[in-house]
Parts: sequence; structure tokens; C-alpha cells
Amino acid sequence: MNATSFAAQPAAPLSAAIIADLQAAVGAANLITDPAECWTYGGDNSRLHALPQAVVFATNTEQIAALVKTCRRHRLPLIARGRGTGTTGAVVPDQGGVILSLERMNQILEVDAANRLLVAQPGATNQEIQQAAAAAGFFWPPDPTSNAYCSLGGNLAYNSAGPRAVKYGTPRENTLGLTAVTGTGEIMRTGVYTTKGVVGLDLTRLLIGSEGLLGIITEAVLKLTPLPPAKRLLAAVYEDVSSAAEAVSAIMAQPVVPCALEFIDAQCIEMIRDYAQADLPRHAGAMLMIEVDGEAEQLTQAADRVAEAARVAGCMDIRIAQTEAETADLWAMRKALSPALRQVAPKKINEDVAVPVSHLPKLIQGLEALSQTHGIRIVSFGHAGNGNIHVNLLLDPEDAQQMQAAEPCLAAVFALVMQLRGTLSGEHGVGLAKRDYVHLELSPESLRLMHDIKRCFDPDNILNPGKALPPI
Amino acid sequence: MNATSFAAQPAAPLSAAIIADLQAAVGAANLITDPAECWTYGGDNSRLHALPQAVVFATNTEQIAALVKTCRRHRLPLIARGRGTGTTGAVVPDQGGVILSLERMNQILEVDAANRLLVAQPGATNQEIQQAAAAAGFFWPPDPTSNAYCSLGGNLAYNSAGPRAVKYGTPRENTLGLTAVTGTGEIMRTGVYTTKGVVGLDLTRLLIGSEGLLGIITEAVLKLTPLPPAKRLLAAVYEDVSSAAEAVSAIMAQPVVPCALEFIDAQCIEMIRDYAQADLPRHAGAMLMIEVDGEAEQLTQAADRVAEAARVAGCMDIRIAQTEAETADLWAMRKALSPALRQVAPKKINEDVAVPVSHLPKLIQGLEALSQTHGIRIVSFGHAGNGNIHVNLLLDPEDAQQMQAAEPCLAAVFALVMQLRGTLSGEHGVGLAKRDYVHLELSPESLRLMHDIKRCFDPDNILNPGKALPPI
Repeated sequence: MNATSFAAQPAAPLSAAIIADLQAAVGAANLITDPAECWTYGGDNSRLHALPQAVVFATNTEQIAALVKTCRRHRLPLIARGRGTGTTGAVVPDQGGVILSLERMNQILEVDAANRLLVAQPGATNQEIQQAAAAAGFFWPPDPTSNAYCSLGGNLAYNSAGPRAVKYGTPRENTLGLTAVTGTGEIMRTGVYTTKGVVGLDLTRLLIGSEGLLGIITEAVLKLTPLPPAKRLLAAVYEDVSSAAEAVSAIMAQPVVPCALEFIDAQCIEMIRDYAQADLPRHAGAMLMIEVDGEAEQLTQAADRVAEAARVAGCMDIRIAQTEAETADLWAMRKALSPALRQVAPKKINEDVAVPVSHLPKLIQGLEALSQTHGIRIVSFGHAGNGNIHVNLLLDPEDAQQMQAAEPCLAAVFALVMQLRGTLSGEHGVGLAKRDYVHLELSPESLRLMHDIKRCFDPDNILNPGKALPPI
Repeated sequence: MNATSFAAQPAAPLSAAIIADLQAAVGAANLITDPAECWTYGGDNSRLHALPQAVVFATNTEQIAALVKTCRRHRLPLIARGRGTGTTGAVVPDQGGVILSLERMNQILEVDAANRLLVAQPGATNQEIQQAAAAAGFFWPPDPTSNAYCSLGGNLAYNSAGPRAVKYGTPRENTLGLTAVTGTGEIMRTGVYTTKGVVGLDLTRLLIGSEGLLGIITEAVLKLTPLPPAKRLLAAVYEDVSSAAEAVSAIMAQPVVPCALEFIDAQCIEMIRDYAQADLPRHAGAMLMIEVDGEAEQLTQAADRVAEAARVAGCMDIRIAQTEAETADLWAMRKALSPALRQVAPKKINEDVAVPVSHLPKLIQGLEALSQTHGIRIVSFGHAGNGNIHVNLLLDPEDAQQMQAAEPCLAAVFALVMQLRGTLSGEHGVGLAKRDYVHLELSPESLRLMHDIKRCFDPDNILNPGKALPPI
């Protein structure tokens, strides 16, 4: 599903009785129902949109429990929402219902340096968490490109990662425990305050990445990692994407794990050359941004090791960013890619498939072939160290032929990824956008189990109904 | 529950019809029913024991699916089992039924260095996996003390860790995907072949640590980590356990993460002095074994950093193991602790609680007080970097008063751990031994959800019934 084929049911206004019940649950000051005000809470970065019937702003867990019970009584869909930076329509109320905005639950409750943990509410932004952690000498590894805006709740709901995941993992590897409200309005705690714990089933990881289907996370205990004393960034340029992909595979096969290993194809480089401050190579087929971190004294050796691995056939140049300004420019360029593509193409379909790193050359070659076959420009960049490539189909909505080719092309991309032992989504999740493709990856048995598990948490299917899992 | 209070129902012999069905499922050559032969498959390292009604040796996933269907038809408990090195009675057939020994499914199917993954069957030992990984320059982080014998299936079922978890995590952080047979006999694949993947719910982590309640793992895709080029071991000696605990906290608050941070109390040191090759200090209150790994050139600096943090008040001596032999001796001593305690005390209750590292001093002081109050010798050692302490109550079964004090003392230990924001089990799991204490840690809501989830996977409750989760 994408913005072109999406048409939500228009939601009827809520009855006075339901509105009164919602007010009783959360307080009149925390509820809006005016469509004009609700409008901005109906979309996300997928450009899918539907008008919520109401928007609620909770300030504590108990309010959310009361809200869930109210929504359950009225069989009203309830969709928790952070800052709407997701790309899959997962927070779009396409079946109507209530949006729960967690923006007012944005406190960082505890930074416990001795135990390397931080407790925060879901509305805190990733950046606020990083700042609080940094003040104690730590960071929280997940760092989506949208980290200045995106919130913890969304990071957990999608298991969002970012460049650092290649070395430090995703939220599932960096979260100790959660407080959540299930679809019956029960408040539960999962997990532990320690880095080991094996009592009962792992509900923490089950909730993480569940896209709001199982519960609403109202507090999280995050595992912190010490800030590395220093970093060094290398930019490696290749004749073609295949040689860059070979280099990724070679880098990941040697012992020094980079803290970022980003891939940028030629089209991306060309596209942003004019906007970027950094000196970008001409006639390059692809570029890698490789960052190593650690003690300052050790970085030269670490950089040498990865540079050695990166120097495969087809490598045109490897250079180390000489100044902090140059490093910042390169990263700014990388971060600008996604918004820049928006400027270039009136419509883009942005996927984030992942394949085992040794299959990256085949993926990239396959994408080039599909681009030719379907007459659609495809540009790619992303977190190559995880094999996680952001594949962007750039479309002109005025071009009927191209728009018609988009879905078959996308289906062919996913089929290719499946052939290469990959996954449909490395970090963006499924939401509405990829729901119809999930059967390519998950067996009917797995899907049935997942629906059964959802029913355990949410027997009346009120929590973000219809997202992430296709019906069976 | 422990060996003194445990009395399993004597299991009746299976009917000829059931035996014929089991033979049809797995082949006559893969089934034993003679009680004398079955006997050895009825216990684990907890010393709990019950006679299985039959033992099956499967050789592939399809056989296991057929076996599960047969057991389901006859409502026969089915308990998968590795090498029986667990300490909680989790594989003891206390309700009778069939033991599925996975010892013949011990193949390492794939070592994929380029993608840092290894595919293995559950019967492969941890050591066999390490050897296969090492040949390609990698290791799999989980390393229980029993690694020479314990098998992958058990490591996954308990989420077993070991010393390296402090830096590299547990099976949940080091497993990409699984093949499993559910309680309905369905074969399912979970997870991905990549280090990121967010399609559907995280069934991989849900199965890991589920103690055989949800499914029988028949294949696992493990995430490998590059072998560090070098290691260095420090032994730090302290006047008392509190100062050692303070040092643990200080070490974990600075950026260099040791690859092992083990704690050994004075009683342990005294107890094994005579057996150990290593030169153990006299009059010490506690000892830490601190290992750092990395590039050889960087180890001096890393060792200096942790030594600096370890040098808290009460530190008597810190020395670096000078030779490989000395390092090996120290580790052999550490590994000998658990069996040595067996020699010393006719009966021991071995717990593996975990608390946030900054609470270790309070835990250790609390244990000393409980030892006094209850007249029971308590010795402690363990993975201090995770706050995961093996608390051993040493008992003399001839001493009626002491035996009577054991359960109240254990209950007080767990209450203390809960007060300190800890968990009942860091890596051993629950099984039968800790089942009656689980309500201290998990809320009724969480427990109900876990039972509901079990029902999704195993509607007739045939997979390891009655373990890990207390009834609600």
C-alpha cells in the first residue's frame, strides 16, 4: 500500500457519551476532538493520512490504563503516537479511532551511571536521551537519522536502529525492561534492571518492534554504553557499486567492527553534490563512510585495519576526514540524503530491506536490472554493515506508465531480497505500507501465532488494529 | 522445590499402542522404553530425577514434528533435552512422558564467515560450536562453565550466558533466527539471516529462554563475533567482599568493558586453595578476575584503565597474569569452583541471582547477615560484571535443623534480591527449582500473559508441562 492507493474510511464524529467517557479517563484538558486540530495527528512521514476521531495527551501510565479501558468498552481503535517520523503509516488511524499522543510524557526519570541504565518516558526524543546519557559519559546506541525529532516510544515500537547498530545493536539489544499497558488496560512491567535475566518469557523483546499491537509502552529502562573517547571517519570511493559492496563484505569479515558503515550510490552522490559542504568525488560509482571508535591512541591502527579491508579491486580512493568540520560535513551530507530525495522526486517509495552482507553485490546488481526493466529510477544508500539498504524508487506521479510500474517493481525488489535470504525491513517496520508483502517473509504458521499472541495482549483488537500483520 | 522435597509421580509403562505410534513417528531404532536404559535421561545437574516413560532420539526436524503430533494425540508430556547440565530440573519428567534427546542432532550445518553466522543443530556442544567458529576466526559469545559438555539447545532454552556476557551479551543478543517445532507439530522459522530485521513479532527471543515450553528448537542461526587477537587477565585481591563489590561498580562505570569480570569470595578461595595450581592469596576477603581483550598493542592501556578503576579502598593487590599458563590456571580454578563446592558440601542449593552492579555490596552484606541468622554457610562467586552472583547454600543433609532452615533462608535471599531491583535468575532459569518463587518477580498479569502465550504455541500443554511458570 502507498499514498497513491490509500483511501481511509472517513471517520464519523464520536458520540457525546464516548467523548464524556474519554474526558473522564484522561481529563478534558487532555482531549481534542475538533477535526482541524486533530488533523495534524493523522499522518506520519509516509504521507499516508487519516483523520483521527479524537486525540488524547496522556501524562502518566494510570491515565493510559484508564484510556485503554474506555476505548475497549467502546471498541474504539487506539493508536499511540510519538512524533510521526515513521515511514510506514503505522500510526495512521485508517480505521478511525483515538490517537494517543505521548508528547507530554517526555521525562527522563533516571540516569544511573553506576548501573549503566537510563529510565525514560516514551515521549522523550532520542536526542534528549542521548544528551542526558552523554552528561554521564554514556550513549544509547539506537540513532535513527531523525534522532533530533523522533521519540523513544517510536524507536521501541519499530525497533529503529541507525548507523551505529552495526557495532552496538538495535533497541532489542539495548533495552532492559519496560512498563506497558496492554489492550485490557492492565499495567505490566517486563524485564529487569540488570543485563541478564531469565525468569519467565521475554516480553520485553516481544513488545519492542511490535508497532503498538500488543501494548502501549509508558516507560523504558534503557541499557547505556560508555561513550567512546574518540572516533575517526573514512570516506572510500569506488568505481562501481559492486566493488563497494565487496568492500563492505571484506570489512565485516575482519575483527575491527566499525561503529558505522554507510553505503551511498552514485546517484545519491550526484544528487546531493550541490547541497553538500563536503568535497564529493566525481565519476564515482559508490562511496562508503566508515567510522571507527575507541581510545584515541588506537584509532590509527583501527582505521588502518578497516582501510586495508576496504581497499578491494575497484577502490579509487580512501581518505580520512582530517578535521572535525570535515567529519561533520560528511555526516550532514549522509543525513541530508533522505530529505534531499524528497526534493528531487515528487514521489518516492522508500524501502529498507536487509540482506546478508555478502549478498550486497547481488542485491545492488539486481536493483540496477529492475530499474532498467521497470523504467523506474532507483537510488540506494544505507547501513551497509548490517546489509540494510534504503532502496528508493523515485516516481513522477504525472507519469501514468511509471506509476503503474511501481507496484510490480516493488514486488520484484522484495522477491529479490527474499531470494538473497534477506528481510523486507531492517528498521522501518511494516505498518500499512509493507503489510501486503509480509507473507513473502513469514509463513502462515508464524502469522497465525503472531495473531494469537496479539489476541493474548489485546483480545478486542483495539490497539493499532490492522497494522504490521496481514490478516490470515 | 529442591531435591529434598521432590517426589515425582511414578510413571506407568506406556501402552503397546502408544509405543507403536512413537515408533511410527521416529523409527524403532530411535526409541527406548526399558526403564533401566531410560533412567539416565531422567535427571539433570540439579539432582532432581524422575523416570521417563520413553526416550526418543530424533535425527531431523520432520521426525520431531511427527513425534510432537503423536504425543499431542496421546496427551503425553514431551521434554526436549540436551546434555542435562542444567541446574533447575527443567528437563526432569516429573509428570512422566517422553524425553526427546537431541544428542544425535549435533551437526554444524554452515559456517558463513562473510556474514558472521553459523547454523547448527541443537545437539552440538557449545565447545564444538566454538571450535567451528574459531576455525573461521570467530566465536559465539555464550560460554557457560559447562561449555565442554552443554549443548546449544540447552544454551538457547535457558538463555545461558557465562563470563563473556558482560561484554558480548547472552544468546538473546547473539542469535539471528531459529527453526522450531511448536506444540501442534508445526515447523516454523523465526528471525532472519541479517543483524537487523523487524517484520512481525520477535518470536526468536520469545523462544530463547522459554525452557522448552513453547517449541523445540531444531536449528539455530547464530551471530558470530570476531575473535579478539589477544587477552589479558588481572587478578585483584580485596580485604573484604564489600570493597571488591565497590571495585566491580567502579570498573563498570568507566569506558573499557572487560570481557570477563568474575567475583570470588574468601570462602571459595580457601576452599579451592589446595586444589588450585594458581597462587591464591591468604587472608583475602575476595578476589576479582578481570579480563580485557582486543588488539595486543592496546591491552596494556586497557588493563591500566580497569586496574585504575579496580584500585578502590580495600584493594590489597592487583597483578597481571604474566604467562599463558598462569592465565589458564586462574581460569581452571574459576571453573573448578562449582564442582569443588559439590565435594565440600554433601548438599548445596545453587542460585544465580542478579542485581544492578552498584547494589552488589548490599547483596553481599545481606547474604552474610542471612548466613548468620539462619546458621547456613553461604559462599558466593560469579559474573560480577552483570551483577550475576552464584549464591551457594552449603548444607549437611544429616543436620535436621540446618535442612529446615534452608527454605526460609532461600526465601530471604530472594526477598533481598527483589529489594535490590534484582532478578531470581541471571542465567540458570527457573525449571522446577525456582518455580515457586517466580511470583516474587512477575506480576499476576505478566504470568497470565505468559500462560496465554504458552497456550498459543502449545494448546494441549504437552511441551515440558509445569516448568518455569507457576500455575495461576
